[in-house]
Parts: sequence; structure tokens; C-alpha cells
Amino acid sequence: MKEAERGRLDEQFAFIREIDREKFIGRQTYLSGALRKENDAEHAWHMAVMTLLLSEYANEEIDVLHTISMLLIHDLVEIDAGDTYAYDEAAKKTQGERERRAADRIYGLLPEDQGKKLYDLWLEFEERKTPEAKFARVMDNIQPMMLNAATDGKAWEEHGVALSQILGRNARTPEGSKVLWDYAREHFIQPNLEAGRIRDDSKSPR
Amino acid sequence: MKEAERGRLDEQFAFIREIDREKFIGRQTYLSGALRKENDAEHAWHMAVMTLLLSEYANEEIDVLHTISMLLIHDLVEIDAGDTYAYDEAAKKTQGERERRAADRIYGLLPEDQGKKLYDLWLEFEERKTPEAKFARVMDNIQPMMLNAATDGKAWEEHGVALSQILGRNARTPEGSKVLWDYAREHFIQPNLEAGRIRDDSKSPR
Repeated sequence: MKEAERGRLDEQFAFIREIDREKFIGRQTYLSGALRKENDAEHAWHMAVMTLLLSEYANEEIDVLHTISMLLIHDLVEIDAGDTYAYDEAAKKTQGERERRAADRIYGLLPEDQGKKLYDLWLEFEERKTPEAKFARVMDNIQPMMLNAATDGKAWEEHGVALSQILGRNARTPEGSKVLWDYAREHFIQPNLEAGRIRDDSKSPR
Repeated sequence: MKEAERGRLDEQFAFIREIDREKFIGRQTYLSGALRKENDAEHAWHMAVMTLLLSEYANEEIDVLHTISMLLIHDLVEIDAGDTYAYDEAAKKTQGERERRAADRIYGLLPEDQGKKLYDLWLEFEERKTPEAKFARVMDNIQPMMLNAATDGKAWEEHGVALSQILGRNARTPEGSKVLWDYAREHFIQPNLEAGRIRDDSKSPR
């Protein structure tokens, strides 16, 4: 093994060891059975498999490897910045800056070419402009929704989530996949709204 | 949404819900910090990211998406068959039949075309003939080795693992990547052998 190759491998494995910490970043979603909540690594794995199966429903044709790559690595910034809950408005204000600094440090552990590639993938996800990023966002929103529905809306009830919050968060979900958004609304949101597990604020007086 | 499309989505989401159980399949590898052991979903995620970064070291050129797909889904059989520890010789005798039945049931939840695709990927991993399967096996062996080394060989010590067992299990690892096998031997195995955390049975009398 040449010296340069060994040095490159050392950097790659420093990153590979570091990202083990993603398995300790907790999310607000309950796993089926509702005995414990999900972590970021489990979430990323689940979305990657979902993309393999559901890419056929993307509004525009997507590069599946590119989309999966984005989903596998975009939450790594939470190793430093922590998980920001979808409906925590205070934390969301500082989220951008915290995550940018984290991206610099974490992707910066890699050899420069690969660090730049992963940083760009993370930024692409954040900017939500490409067909791949739009579809990745669908996965990021629908995966927890699917688990919330599978656990009788426990996470929604626990946080007193209102319909308007879910619809607000998903305002751009149909840009990635109209079919999946329709399915999610019908199968995940509507039954839990009717069961009172999602707070119905659509009829509240102004 | 057409009826056929809805039926297909119902099957896809039945599978997507079912595989949530992979997050409860425990492995013998300790995560960094050694506070708890890894589960199959975390393991799959970690290997997928590793493949993104390390595919350049494959002996033969590999299709990265194909390899990652294999790694993301091949352990799903353990939802029914359980994790078989690498050095549990009794359990390994029944492993093949248990896992084949599991593959039939679990991949069978999907629409037929996708079920067949995933079953074939699982079988390809098992048969270890293609460049992608050979490289996927490298990931499957090196990821836990890397974590064992990062946790001062705790899992090796706990199970009293001997050098001959590790070398036996990895007899075909160089077929997928000579570079990564050399690196793993030098950085993960050798230091732990010298520290007495891997039992050195290479000099024992016959």
C-alpha cells in the first residue's frame, strides 16, 4: 500500500468512525410497537429503502443513487447540531447556522474531493431545487408520517400537533411526488385527524 | 389515483411498515463508546455510506447503486430468522433454511416485480459471485471489525474470538478488495491481536 493511499484511507476511516455517532441522535418518531423512538441512522436507512421502491412515483425522473446518497448523509450535521424537531419554532431559527458549521467540520474529515461531494449533496438537499432533492424531501416527510400512523398517532398526540402544522410543513411535498402526497394524506393524515390524534384547527374561528 | 396504483402502493407500504422491525434485530457489535450494541438497520446504513466512499478500492469495477441496494436489504431476512452471530457454529447450520423461508415471506409482501428484484439481490449477496456481491461482503465483514477496533476489541474479548476464526471468516474478503483487507488487517486486527483482545491461536501446538 502506497503512503498516499494509506493517508486517504486514514481520512476515510476517521469519517466512517465519526459518523457512528449518528446512531445516537434521537428523533421524535416512535418505531412500530411505540416502545422507543427512532434514531437518525435508522431513519436514513428506512428512507433509502423507500427510495429504491418508490422512485417510480417521483414527478420528474430521478437518479436513484444520487437521491439515496443525499438521504444517507444529509442528517450527519445533527451529530453536532442535534435533531431539530419539525414543530419546534425556536430551535428552527438557529438551525441553519448550527448545521452549516457542522457540515464544515464533519464532511471536512474526508479527503477533499469526497468532502466536497458530500457537502454539495447536503446543500442540494437543503436547497430543494433538483428533482432528486425534491423527492428526498418527500421521503424525509413521509417516512415519519407513515410511522406516526403505524403507532396510532402517538407522536402527534404527544406534541399536540395540529393539521395546519402538518400541511404547512408539507406545503412543498407535492413538488416531489404528487402521488405519494395524495396517498399520505389519505392513509396517514386523514384517519388520524378523524380519530382526534391530529388536532383539527381547520375550522377554528379567526 | 387509479385502483391498481392504490393496490400497488398498499403492498409497497405494507413492506415498508414491516421492515421497521429490522431496527429491533440486535447484533454483537458495540457502537463507539461501547454503551450499547448495534442493530441491523444501523449496520446497513453504515455499510451503505461506506460503499459510497470506498467503492474505489473494489478489485473489479462495481455498480455502486446495485451494491448499496444489496446491503440495504440483505439483512431483512433476520426479521424472521434472527441474527446469526459470525462465530456461532450451531446456529449457522440452520441459518440457510431459516433465511430462505424468511426471504420468501418478507420480499413476498411487495408487488411481484419488486419482490423478485429484492429476492434476487438477497440471493446474489448470499452466492457471492458478482463483483458487487464480493464487495458487499467486504463491507459486511469490515464494518463490524472497524467498530470492534474502535471499542478496544470489547466484542472480540466478550466472545473469546481467536485469530483463526477471524481469518477463516475473512478467507474470501480479499476477493472483493485486496486494499481494504490489507488495511483492516493492519489497522483493526493486528493491534488487537498484540493487545491480547483477539486470542492468538496461530502458535498453538497441533
